[in-house]
Amino acid sequence: MSKMLEKIKSPRDLDGMSYEQLEQLAGEIRKSLISTVSSNGGHLASNLGVVELTLALHRVFHMPEDKVVFDVGHQSYIHKIITGRYDRFSTLRSYGGLSGFPKRCESPYDCFETGHASTAISAALGMARARDYQNEHYDVIAVVGDGALTGGMCYEALNDAGNSKTNMIVVLNDNEMSIAPNVGALSQYLTRLRISAGWQSAKQHVRHLNQIPVIGKPLYRVIHGIKKVLRSLVVRDNETGFFEALGFEYYGPINGHDIEEMEKAFRQARYRKGPCVIQVLTKKGYGYDKAEERPEAFHGTPPFYVETGYRIDKPQSPSWGHIMADTLADLSENDKRIVAITAAMKLGTGLDHFAERFPDRLIDVGIAEEHAATMAAGLAAGGMRPYVAVYASFFQRCYDQMIHDVCMQNLPVVFLLDRSGIGGEDGQTHHGLFDFSMTIPVPGMTVLAPSSSQELISMLRWSIGQNGPCVIRYPKSIKPVQQQKTDRPFEAGKWLELKAGMDVILLAVGSMVPKAMDTACILEQHGISTCVMNCSTVKPLDEEYLASMPQNVQVYTMEEHMLAGGFGEYVSRYCLDMGYNVPAFCYAVRDCYIQHGDHERLIRDAKLDAESLAEDIYRKMKGENAGGR
Amino acid sequence: MSKMLEKIKSPRDLDGMSYEQLEQLAGEIRKSLISTVSSNGGHLASNLGVVELTLALHRVFHMPEDKVVFDVGHQSYIHKIITGRYDRFSTLRSYGGLSGFPKRCESPYDCFETGHASTAISAALGMARARDYQNEHYDVIAVVGDGALTGGMCYEALNDAGNSKTNMIVVLNDNEMSIAPNVGALSQYLTRLRISAGWQSAKQHVRHLNQIPVIGKPLYRVIHGIKKVLRSLVVRDNETGFFEALGFEYYGPINGHDIEEMEKAFRQARYRKGPCVIQVLTKKGYGYDKAEERPEAFHGTPPFYVETGYRIDKPQSPSWGHIMADTLADLSENDKRIVAITAAMKLGTGLDHFAERFPDRLIDVGIAEEHAATMAAGLAAGGMRPYVAVYASFFQRCYDQMIHDVCMQNLPVVFLLDRSGIGGEDGQTHHGLFDFSMTIPVPGMTVLAPSSSQELISMLRWSIGQNGPCVIRYPKSIKPVQQQKTDRPFEAGKWLELKAGMDVILLAVGSMVPKAMDTACILEQHGISTCVMNCSTVKPLDEEYLASMPQNVQVYTMEEHMLAGGFGEYVSRYCLDMGYNVPAFCYAVRDCYIQHGDHERLIRDAKLDAESLAEDIYRKMKGENAGGR
Repeated sequence: MSKMLEKIKSPRDLDGMSYEQLEQLAGEIRKSLISTVSSNGGHLASNLGVVELTLALHRVFHMPEDKVVFDVGHQSYIHKIITGRYDRFSTLRSYGGLSGFPKRCESPYDCFETGHASTAISAALGMARARDYQNEHYDVIAVVGDGALTGGMCYEALNDAGNSKTNMIVVLNDNEMSIAPNVGALSQYLTRLRISAGWQSAKQHVRHLNQIPVIGKPLYRVIHGIKKVLRSLVVRDNETGFFEALGFEYYGPINGHDIEEMEKAFRQARYRKGPCVIQVLTKKGYGYDKAEERPEAFHGTPPFYVETGYRIDKPQSPSWGHIMADTLADLSENDKRIVAITAAMKLGTGLDHFAERFPDRLIDVGIAEEHAATMAAGLAAGGMRPYVAVYASFFQRCYDQMIHDVCMQNLPVVFLLDRSGIGGEDGQTHHGLFDFSMTIPVPGMTVLAPSSSQELISMLRWSIGQNGPCVIRYPKSIKPVQQQKTDRPFEAGKWLELKAGMDVILLAVGSMVPKAMDTACILEQHGISTCVMNCSTVKPLDEEYLASMPQNVQVYTMEEHMLAGGFGEYVSRYCLDMGYNVPAFCYAVRDCYIQHGDHERLIRDAKLDAESLAEDIYRKMKGENAGGR
Repeated sequence: MSKMLEKIKSPRDLDGMSYEQLEQLAGEIRKSLISTVSSNGGHLASNLGVVELTLALHRVFHMPEDKVVFDVGHQSYIHKIITGRYDRFSTLRSYGGLSGFPKRCESPYDCFETGHASTAISAALGMARARDYQNEHYDVIAVVGDGALTGGMCYEALNDAGNSKTNMIVVLNDNEMSIAPNVGALSQYLTRLRISAGWQSAKQHVRHLNQIPVIGKPLYRVIHGIKKVLRSLVVRDNETGFFEALGFEYYGPINGHDIEEMEKAFRQARYRKGPCVIQVLTKKGYGYDKAEERPEAFHGTPPFYVETGYRIDKPQSPSWGHIMADTLADLSENDKRIVAITAAMKLGTGLDHFAERFPDRLIDVGIAEEHAATMAAGLAAGGMRPYVAVYASFFQRCYDQMIHDVCMQNLPVVFLLDRSGIGGEDGQTHHGLFDFSMTIPVPGMTVLAPSSSQELISMLRWSIGQNGPCVIRYPKSIKPVQQQKTDRPFEAGKWLELKAGMDVILLAVGSMVPKAMDTACILEQHGISTCVMNCSTVKPLDEEYLASMPQNVQVYTMEEHMLAGGFGEYVSRYCLDMGYNVPAFCYAVRDCYIQHGDHERLIRDAKLDAESLAEDIYRKMKGENAGGR
């Protein structure tokens, strides 16, 4: 079926191909993308959009000598397919298989790892400078989406590169979206660039394209036909003020589904001096009608039926994000101070539910977590109650702002950290394993981790009455269980005994609470009487409970977080200081990066599943009884 | 002497004044600034530059109803003087006195706290949105230097504000410098704006101004006279592409030493809709010739003689930064891979010494720590050996980049953290108390803290042979002592016994090592035999030593860092896991913010001075002996 594709063992195999052959190859690649992602899940729409762009890059630039850095990196599937990894492409994102992001250990063609947005221009500038210092000669290219361009790092890098006049090429992959449709003034500016060059908005094309049958069909011909408009490389000077102000030469816009045209532009760019930006217009989801219609849904998608676009897994219980957003909206009925903030992740964080009811009180700032945090601090200083919903791994982006702008002023900003703990198929850049060590040391911060939907709801209700900063972290993978329904209002610093026991106490946090319950079950079967505490407040600790903890019981902590700087270390030191019973062992992730794969499998690898925990505790109990203390 | 100034109890006292009177007042303010800063130290040049700007702001806008956010905040002295704090101005930056930065607890006129650069536009946008949500009516103004504008957060905020069309005013205080002369393409762009409007570069004026006698003399008349040039508010459209691309209207440039002209512009800006930028040209150090000549030296200055501009304190032993830079330069003689990176802090980090010998191998990226870290990762991926020198508190800005771009790829980037631990007069935003909790949890990171210059040198020599990421943290305040000179090469994970002892072991880190030695002295006088270990490697721990530590000895850890997530917690948990002797107590900063003041005084407050430490350990030893364990 993919007979051309099977022959591509390296990008140089593209060299002799005609544009007709390349067009056919693009069709095969799209089939392969849709086939693998529909079965493994992954980033579909963005990859469908850059098939021709990736082929054009590989035709003009000779990797791995030339270096191409893919911003965010989730659009590197085609790059992987044509750099000798087609035979393993079906393992994409699965445990032990190909990563969904560039990986240096996977291939010399992956020159720099990405995962979080807006890093590529900085990395490429560093590589270009390294080249110049060493008097070497190769091209360095950053491929950046217009969404990633809303991140401040891009601007810092453009400013530095434009000043230093380093030779490098920034390919602006302009699909008018990040994950959600782009926000920000610059996005409108890019639209003006398109219009000034005689382009219609790609969005307007959608109406045409939708009527055409799908998959494999070389749709780009249609676009190609529609606008054989002007192709003069540089548009009017006074329209390119932004990039020129930053010292870049601007070329474009160029049809991102026309390989020949892109090749021409790339070749020209190679032979000029200094940094330049080439704006390439692509269409997210291009070539698969379901993805073109709903590119947000097919940005990161679970497995789906190709014919219908519907997800294969059964409808889930409401996500943590939707429970959060619904609760926030409920609270907003009576409290006009509430405002929700997202950094380009309205759908991912569940805030679409909030926006349905309070569209004016959701602020999407673009991929700009730093600004999100400080802007929230400004809102709070102005009397509002901001809730910043962000993935735990991206929360790392606003570490200083959290401390400097929110906590030092003791402002009532609530950070809602989705996808905390070990994630899954997205791998190491997307796990949320540092948030406790980020927040526990910060004076005045309250750190919460609900283990059930009911608890998340009561925490949110509680938060509205507080006057300081707060973090609430919850995972992606564990479905929030409707635990013992109670109207008891949440109280920070009070842990709940879920199960009594005499021999062992498990101090479990958030996603580890259900696992601790399972562990207790197993231990009880072995005659070990086990108490399970739901430590939903990580800071402040439940000092009263810890003081009351009997000395002759073995205590263990459990958290989905790094050991260093985590809950266990924090409790341990506190208990040591107070002369209390000190946890015998802290179950956590131990000083290594967790790779990608199925969540449960990764949890087992980290020995944080109930069976491993029970076994280890049993061993420790017996070992101790055997050897004494 | 300052008879007008004494009568200013609130900004409204400015209302009835003529421009001649304001000019006279400006002279008195300059005198007061020079007098206080020459005795207390502080930020002089930037404040001298914004005397007229601050007066004009307070004349047009009515604070505290109207909100003005000063970016970085160290230029808020005049604001403090005329908002009822003149009588306390002589206490500036001293323990218990006025802060050198805006403080909400100090005055209702300080609406938002700043300290790190590039936050003001985000904060102001948040406040403006809060105003609009609550249907209130006041003006929100962000005062941002052109230096701070090199930070990506500014761009994220401009992009969001320009898109939302929120009413707000950004006053761009353009003095052509951040702390050092500005870098970056945008800085050149701003210069073009100036030139296009018929302005000479303010730098060119210096030559004129230097010949005129100093202080109090209303120099701005000279400037005023030189260019009564065009005053049409909006310059040509196609020259303002940058701000307009971001959805802002642009006004200027305006003479930042002409109160009347600024007032006119501010009044016009009040009555328009949407966000606007007003570019105001000021001169750093304006009105004090020494500061005009060397604005970098008078950015943040220790006490000095007004007549000569010379520092009062004797020449110090070389700073940590200069030792670092000299060593790096020495290493560079034989290793062409070394490159040093600063984020607009060449002088502060000591890298001026490096730049003298290897000007081409110092990269100043502007106030852009995020980009600095990722660009360094790019350099390392390209085969170079980047050393990023940054203040510990600003290192917080590149937390995610450190993890995501450097450590996850195990790239040999060395972060050199100056000003770690408790700082001094700059106060809470400038202490470096979170860097261990930032770095210890990160797999693959090596965390070092030298206690002597010799040790810093040997660590740097060691680092060049390593293939992974590394952090080296050193303080500002403790002078590096020439300790036991030895040619023993540094070995990571090996601690050094500085003094043997039988009763107590002090595990001390970095700046606490000399304090531990003093503590040991005191304890010995009380008959307690004390061992002092120099724990120069925080991660990895010296596992061999910890294994060998006798059980019948009291162990204490000492660090200038927060307790949570710090060295002590880390060692404690490790020793618990291994069944070793566990530290009885960890001396560190305990869950509170440290304010500003003299370093030694702050150390005493935190009970981290030798006397407090010895007393507490003595008490604990006796208490234990009394009560048994």
